[in-house]
Amino acid sequence: MGNNVIITDENTQYKLTGNHMVWWQPGDWDIYEHLYNTTRFTDIDAISKRNHPNLAQTYIPENAVNTPVTMKTDDGVYLSFHEAALYNYAGITLKVDKENLMMQSELVGNSKNIKVETAVPFNTPWRTIQITDRAGELIESKLLLNLNEPNKLGDVSYVKPTKYVGIWWEMHLGKASWDMASGKHGATTENAKRYIDFAAKNNIHGLLVEGWNTGWEHWIGFEDREGVFDFVTPYPDYDLNGVVRYGKEKGVALIMHHETSAASQTYDKQLDTAFALMNKLGVHAVKTGYVGKILPKGEYHHGQYMVNHYQRVLEMGAKYKVAINAHEPIMATGIRRTYPNFIAREGLRGQEFNAWASDGGNKPEHLTIVPFTRMLAGPIDYTPGIFDIKLKPWKPNNQVNNTLAQQLALYVVLYSPVQMAADLPENYEGNPAFQFIRDVAVDWQESKVLNGEIGDYVTIARKERGGDRWFVGSVTDENARQLVVKLDFLDAGKKYTATVYADGADADWDKNPTSYKIENFTVGSSSVLTLNLAPGGGAAISIVPIK
Amino acid sequence: MGNNVIITDENTQYKLTGNHMVWWQPGDWDIYEHLYNTTRFTDIDAISKRNHPNLAQTYIPENAVNTPVTMKTDDGVYLSFHEAALYNYAGITLKVDKENLMMQSELVGNSKNIKVETAVPFNTPWRTIQITDRAGELIESKLLLNLNEPNKLGDVSYVKPTKYVGIWWEMHLGKASWDMASGKHGATTENAKRYIDFAAKNNIHGLLVEGWNTGWEHWIGFEDREGVFDFVTPYPDYDLNGVVRYGKEKGVALIMHHETSAASQTYDKQLDTAFALMNKLGVHAVKTGYVGKILPKGEYHHGQYMVNHYQRVLEMGAKYKVAINAHEPIMATGIRRTYPNFIAREGLRGQEFNAWASDGGNKPEHLTIVPFTRMLAGPIDYTPGIFDIKLKPWKPNNQVNNTLAQQLALYVVLYSPVQMAADLPENYEGNPAFQFIRDVAVDWQESKVLNGEIGDYVTIARKERGGDRWFVGSVTDENARQLVVKLDFLDAGKKYTATVYADGADADWDKNPTSYKIENFTVGSSSVLTLNLAPGGGAAISIVPIK
Repeated sequence: MGNNVIITDENTQYKLTGNHMVWWQPGDWDIYEHLYNTTRFTDIDAISKRNHPNLAQTYIPENAVNTPVTMKTDDGVYLSFHEAALYNYAGITLKVDKENLMMQSELVGNSKNIKVETAVPFNTPWRTIQITDRAGELIESKLLLNLNEPNKLGDVSYVKPTKYVGIWWEMHLGKASWDMASGKHGATTENAKRYIDFAAKNNIHGLLVEGWNTGWEHWIGFEDREGVFDFVTPYPDYDLNGVVRYGKEKGVALIMHHETSAASQTYDKQLDTAFALMNKLGVHAVKTGYVGKILPKGEYHHGQYMVNHYQRVLEMGAKYKVAINAHEPIMATGIRRTYPNFIAREGLRGQEFNAWASDGGNKPEHLTIVPFTRMLAGPIDYTPGIFDIKLKPWKPNNQVNNTLAQQLALYVVLYSPVQMAADLPENYEGNPAFQFIRDVAVDWQESKVLNGEIGDYVTIARKERGGDRWFVGSVTDENARQLVVKLDFLDAGKKYTATVYADGADADWDKNPTSYKIENFTVGSSSVLTLNLAPGGGAAISIVPIK
Repeated sequence: MGNNVIITDENTQYKLTGNHMVWWQPGDWDIYEHLYNTTRFTDIDAISKRNHPNLAQTYIPENAVNTPVTMKTDDGVYLSFHEAALYNYAGITLKVDKENLMMQSELVGNSKNIKVETAVPFNTPWRTIQITDRAGELIESKLLLNLNEPNKLGDVSYVKPTKYVGIWWEMHLGKASWDMASGKHGATTENAKRYIDFAAKNNIHGLLVEGWNTGWEHWIGFEDREGVFDFVTPYPDYDLNGVVRYGKEKGVALIMHHETSAASQTYDKQLDTAFALMNKLGVHAVKTGYVGKILPKGEYHHGQYMVNHYQRVLEMGAKYKVAINAHEPIMATGIRRTYPNFIAREGLRGQEFNAWASDGGNKPEHLTIVPFTRMLAGPIDYTPGIFDIKLKPWKPNNQVNNTLAQQLALYVVLYSPVQMAADLPENYEGNPAFQFIRDVAVDWQESKVLNGEIGDYVTIARKERGGDRWFVGSVTDENARQLVVKLDFLDAGKKYTATVYADGADADWDKNPTSYKIENFTVGSSSVLTLNLAPGGGAAISIVPIK
């Protein structure tokens, strides 16, 4: 291949104008599931984030940061750095040069010290900078999408925005297991039908079932992971066809699950078979997972090898009309514009860390930083909606570090066309606050960031696509906060009922996280709502036109 | 029949000790659907209640009152007068003798001036007086039941306490009609299935369908009502078998409807056929109706003739395993102890008056009197749960004269093992307050009246049968009120979550009836809740043990 080139380095440089405040996570080549850190630029210390006790894979070779990385100058300018249209190339990290207040691109490589192998001519991804004097404008920006090509798949009507439930949280709680050998297998036909019944009753139209296929006995912690999982063989207590059929009768679509355990070659080999099965079943969505160090050894999740793997999966999805929700993915770079079947990704420290992380789970401020960092890249499958904040009786030493009202707010604050109602059905039954999850839209026509400071609070209003309802979500960090929200985005002259799901007067993410208050008001475009957010709290509002 | 006797009068006398305050309705021989009046005994004026514009039948021959009639002496003693075990006899009214502060029984007669025709020996019904110094004790009393014989039907497991929805309110609103000729027939297969779907999703297991059978074109206002209705012939747009089957699949049982239009002989003739059909369909409940003047002419709803008719229907129900919920009934006298299939009755001015009565509907105080009067007789099918208080867009000049929170409270305050969620499904969808209706029990193991003054307010706590949940309902009249409720009825040492559905701070039955507030608290037996009831308002509380 005479036109081939090998790229061993790329030296895009960003010279900063000062020692800005930075919201960063370490330049990890294998994972984005670190908490964000808030420091001055010269205090960035990625190396100190090595040896994280709760990550199945992590590799931080030097003092660099992952992107998007977001900053605020002392005179109030907000900056965020990332990349767009990443194809057949390595993901980026930004190396920190404290002395010169400079960042320089450091591509994710592999153990052969090759960053990229390609042919000329080629395009690198775009290197992007967002600059604004209003933090919320970072979120409203369409920059990344506009740097990608339009839809090349044609009809993607099979890609359906949806709320979903799943056989998932019960595994993180230890109530059930992915594998069957434990005797408490979660993915049984009976349990799946129970979730379908629950979803059907509650305006939820998707069901994720993890642990449905053989192989989970030989997963995390094993080196020889190739050839273990396949993506067509159900455990004997799970009737795949029956569950799909039952779901269809009840208007609940199965979301397939493919945990690859990062054994990329096994997955590549079976890709066509696995996706053909979904197509045959009429299943149009899959959640993929890549837990563990990449096989073949020496490759990393964010390197060119895996960028191309994720792309193959995406294109296989397009071939068989399947939308992809990748966990342990490469970071989003706006290619969902071109491949609209890339419906969402993880790529952040998600809800599950609250169930078991030995570092105490996500901090109350976590989700006031994520909207201004990770979320700038694209839709997030965070899996919100945990109502049993204290995780009783399953995890006496862990908890969600936010209030129940904040869990509701996340359905609006965190953008994703697929949103899980992640808790166990029994934790929703009987709770009037669940009405917000029943009601909230997942597909938006318009979004406005009403206020926000990175790491402190943010309030976002979104109007549903194909309807006249608005939803507002507001979250705060560990500090209580009173936010005054103008509803001037509503149509002038129209009347609406606003139902406000807010923290109770005595709510607190630690001491009283499930105290909430639901109130309703008749509002219009000149109305103002005062939201009192508890420490670690939030508020969610549905605004419905009065006929 | 040589042993026959004709009774032309009965002169049971009650001499009062003073000119007590009385909660009364006129001694109407044909209906109990008057508002209660609150006057001194000597101000009782039943005659002034003649010519009521909103009653299909009414006959008030003299200055008498219907029972139960309840009084309060100036030194704080509460009295209530009624009768128990009414069989083969005429219903009672109590004639008012103002000069002597005396009441004397006046049996309901017929146009032949016969009160009762019977054979010796015979028993009259019991004449009952309840006396107490605490108003709530009237409600807690088991006197009427204890004056009746035990269950004589044996296995009555087919009698199922249930919440139900119905094709009913939409007719009162004018959205639909009972008859088919209007072009807006309510009882269509499609509409019934819509209600079944809604019920199945919301922990409601019964469906009433009115207007399903031919004959409704020739109903109220016609003299020749005999032979019009039958109880086996559906309108062509209603698939009776299909609806029953669809309901069974979804766990929603049909409640049959028999409107007799008071044509008692037509109903009597068809009784066996009609009940056999229900038995064949596996339908175990019927709502009966007797709107209009009784046929044959000269008989009245509360006379011996009809007492015996209602009894025949009840016994036919027992034969075919059908529970009876009679509207326009004879008043309950505790015979449900003996015939447990007499599950509930109307026999009061129900919710429907709010939809169309030209006198402005039920007054805000109505349901603070009913618990101390009509409810002493037995279970009430009031059909609570109207959320669209202003009845928009159907009835711009009518409204429910209570707040939405009071509508919730009625599920606890008004005792009935069958409770309707009476509003249109579309008025419940999306409202978090609907959770209370989903949750509330209908069958009770224990009831405590926590506070109450007749015509002012009342708070009742009830523990569900077969479970550990408590529910509390509190209603007030047109006055705002702060009530402090001790939860000392809870098990000591146990913790519970109390979810309080209360009036919003600015709620008012007229100006802002749908403003509510839902809050939750962790409570125990030493907890105290302060309830702020709006004018015409209420509060409903579910109290669920924490596992």
